[in-house]
Amino acid sequence: MSNKQKRYLLPEDEIPRYWYNIQADMVNKPMQPLNPETKEPLKPEDLYPILSKAVSHQELDMENAWIEIPEEVREMYKYYRSTPLVRAYGLEKALGTPAHIYFKNESVSPMGSHKLNSAIPQAYYCKQEGVTNVTTETGAGQWGASLSYAARLFGLEAAVYQVKVSYEQKPYRRSIMQTYGAQVTPSPSMSTRAGKDVLTAHPNHQGSLGTAISEAIELAKTTPNCKYTLGSVLSHVTLHQTVIGQEAEKQMEMAGEYPDMVIACFGGGSNFGGIAFPFMRHNILEGKKTRFIAAEPASCPKLTRGKFQYDYADEAGYTPMLPMYTLGHKFAPANIHAGGLRYHGAGVIVSQLLKDGLMEAVDINQLESFDAGVLFAQAEGIIPAPESCHAIAATVREALKCKETGEEKVILFCLSGHGLIDMASYDKYLAGDLVNYQLSDEDIQKNL
Amino acid sequence: MSNKQKRYLLPEDEIPRYWYNIQADMVNKPMQPLNPETKEPLKPEDLYPILSKAVSHQELDMENAWIEIPEEVREMYKYYRSTPLVRAYGLEKALGTPAHIYFKNESVSPMGSHKLNSAIPQAYYCKQEGVTNVTTETGAGQWGASLSYAARLFGLEAAVYQVKVSYEQKPYRRSIMQTYGAQVTPSPSMSTRAGKDVLTAHPNHQGSLGTAISEAIELAKTTPNCKYTLGSVLSHVTLHQTVIGQEAEKQMEMAGEYPDMVIACFGGGSNFGGIAFPFMRHNILEGKKTRFIAAEPASCPKLTRGKFQYDYADEAGYTPMLPMYTLGHKFAPANIHAGGLRYHGAGVIVSQLLKDGLMEAVDINQLESFDAGVLFAQAEGIIPAPESCHAIAATVREALKCKETGEEKVILFCLSGHGLIDMASYDKYLAGDLVNYQLSDEDIQKNL
Repeated sequence: MSNKQKRYLLPEDEIPRYWYNIQADMVNKPMQPLNPETKEPLKPEDLYPILSKAVSHQELDMENAWIEIPEEVREMYKYYRSTPLVRAYGLEKALGTPAHIYFKNESVSPMGSHKLNSAIPQAYYCKQEGVTNVTTETGAGQWGASLSYAARLFGLEAAVYQVKVSYEQKPYRRSIMQTYGAQVTPSPSMSTRAGKDVLTAHPNHQGSLGTAISEAIELAKTTPNCKYTLGSVLSHVTLHQTVIGQEAEKQMEMAGEYPDMVIACFGGGSNFGGIAFPFMRHNILEGKKTRFIAAEPASCPKLTRGKFQYDYADEAGYTPMLPMYTLGHKFAPANIHAGGLRYHGAGVIVSQLLKDGLMEAVDINQLESFDAGVLFAQAEGIIPAPESCHAIAATVREALKCKETGEEKVILFCLSGHGLIDMASYDKYLAGDLVNYQLSDEDIQKNL
Repeated sequence: MSNKQKRYLLPEDEIPRYWYNIQADMVNKPMQPLNPETKEPLKPEDLYPILSKAVSHQELDMENAWIEIPEEVREMYKYYRSTPLVRAYGLEKALGTPAHIYFKNESVSPMGSHKLNSAIPQAYYCKQEGVTNVTTETGAGQWGASLSYAARLFGLEAAVYQVKVSYEQKPYRRSIMQTYGAQVTPSPSMSTRAGKDVLTAHPNHQGSLGTAISEAIELAKTTPNCKYTLGSVLSHVTLHQTVIGQEAEKQMEMAGEYPDMVIACFGGGSNFGGIAFPFMRHNILEGKKTRFIAAEPASCPKLTRGKFQYDYADEAGYTPMLPMYTLGHKFAPANIHAGGLRYHGAGVIVSQLLKDGLMEAVDINQLESFDAGVLFAQAEGIIPAPESCHAIAATVREALKCKETGEEKVILFCLSGHGLIDMASYDKYLAGDLVNYQLSDEDIQKNL
């Protein structure tokens, strides 16, 4: 590399002014979520007891492809956006691939991940609607940290249920949330019915995102002036994340390239949809042929081995029933270190897109993900989040295919976050103490 | 804040092409370092057994104000530079100050601090000169992580001595260094004479930068093809860090302002000199009146309470004797959480500048530093390194003075790093377990 541009950044006035709602452009719309009590198609009003009104409407909006970003939210985005698009010359060289690899570096957000992109608008709408308290779940803690900070920005109180295994594996994330002034409770807890039910049935339960969601929703439902917020899965969260892909679009243009492949790790789908949908728009409207690849953990393979069916988004069954690829809402994922990917289902948009063949999914086992993460760290300097390692591993696979065929394909992946709070996981990897978790077909069927 | 620019970034072709060597422009040059054996003025050749030849010459260069940055180093800077200059609207609002506060955000480096700015050239020169192994000391671990990564970039083996108290307080930094492939040893260790001497005299010694430097130098001296590298104190390290101030100069111009004050935390002086010297140049050459304020910990107050005298840079007395403000090279600093500031002496340039009244120094106690850090985190989203908290505390003091007088002064400070690896320290602060360390005059005199 010599005199080649490595990073691409946008001036502040080019930070997106609209979020992109792919639902409006989809030929086959997602199937309708159902009200869990009436089993009727869900209406925005059904969500009011849990969510802010604004996002309740965004969730089900099939009409408007572009939804304006409130000026105050856009001002907050300026704290860290645009994030850099980076040409991964170091990784290309390490792999000896002719592929051109780019990554969108969401790890430079002060929270260390893409999660703030949705935490800010969710907190903003709550504040606008007179809400005083917000609550949420978090796995690895990236979302919880972001929501805690966003709440602080708008003067809201935040209460976070953190999946117990992450609470214990990643104590620094708890400290980060507390530094922003949030209350953090390990989940399952004895403070909610949902938590008690799990803990009395399974006394040593290590927690799951599904259970933590139930606990947070229960708190929101039983507390006046308190709303629930969510870090992924739901369509409005992915909507907010489309700032990633829109920026990347402009930045790829600055680099004079267009991606043949867009790759992201997959937990609930928000960083994946965030980077993919603005590019997928060109596939839908203009017939472009970009491939979109979601990289999920082999131990939690809803996209590659799950079933498309109506299911709850949480363990206790408080949420609407969503038409999605799922492992069953009672699925208890293995204690992998990519806490943000330990989730049983996929959002309704992604589920429909996968069903219709508009995107692909691959599963990555834990050791392959860390192999790729350490390779990336040594080549590019950034220690990736264990979640993001899955996207890197999928990128490495494709880049090595290019090496074989000699094709100069353009690969764009989302570096959804850094792994500085996850060093205990890297420690275990370096010590040879990490294992892969294999699921039998029986394991997969058990909760479906 | 509305529609105001928050962050300023430079295009890659405006990343500096030269480092700024303030020694060439100083009217009173720094006094000459002495060869520790002959007590004669130090010549570059005297440093060859320890340092690369290139930096040995940079160290003592009084002639050349501008030293060209090698193209390969500049290419590596592109991995993360320019770093943003940020207008701290959030902090201004939280303080209710009319001051305009800017910070140079070095925390976005993949290593989390400014340290990579010097690690890259130091490793580069070693590689150029056929060196195969590099060694160094590290306190909090920011420098050690940067050197480990820079060594990896150039295919060198790295061995790092980490101050024991930091090794134990901040285990994640050790993991980071190991992820880049470095060997990490807590210091004092039994693997060097310097370490043994300390440990046999004081069996529970918690380590200091001074001792860790001695161990690393001893390793370099006794190992073929191995050079020592240093993270601060020496003049060439500060030289490399002037990319910070040069960028900030251009970025302040973009913002249409010029700083009345430039503030940085102070350990050995590299982030301070890095941001200050390019602006100080205008004081020296054009009579500008910017104030330069170094913020040091009250528990390690070489600038505010130390003595200007010849002293060693390390505990065992392996280094040249430097004319500097010092607490004595046998000074054992308290176990404050700002590990990077636990150092007994100040670089020769800063020492001369302070003696000549071209800059100021303030001391900040531990609680005031964390008060400021948490205030900043909640206002700006970034959790600052405990070291950087000292710069923020000094900034808060000045901003509150402006509030009293109504003056719209422009304050620029260096956010030298983030504190994500230091959350255990924040935990203690939030729990009320941190204390201030007061030094009596007797304590100060003891090692002088």
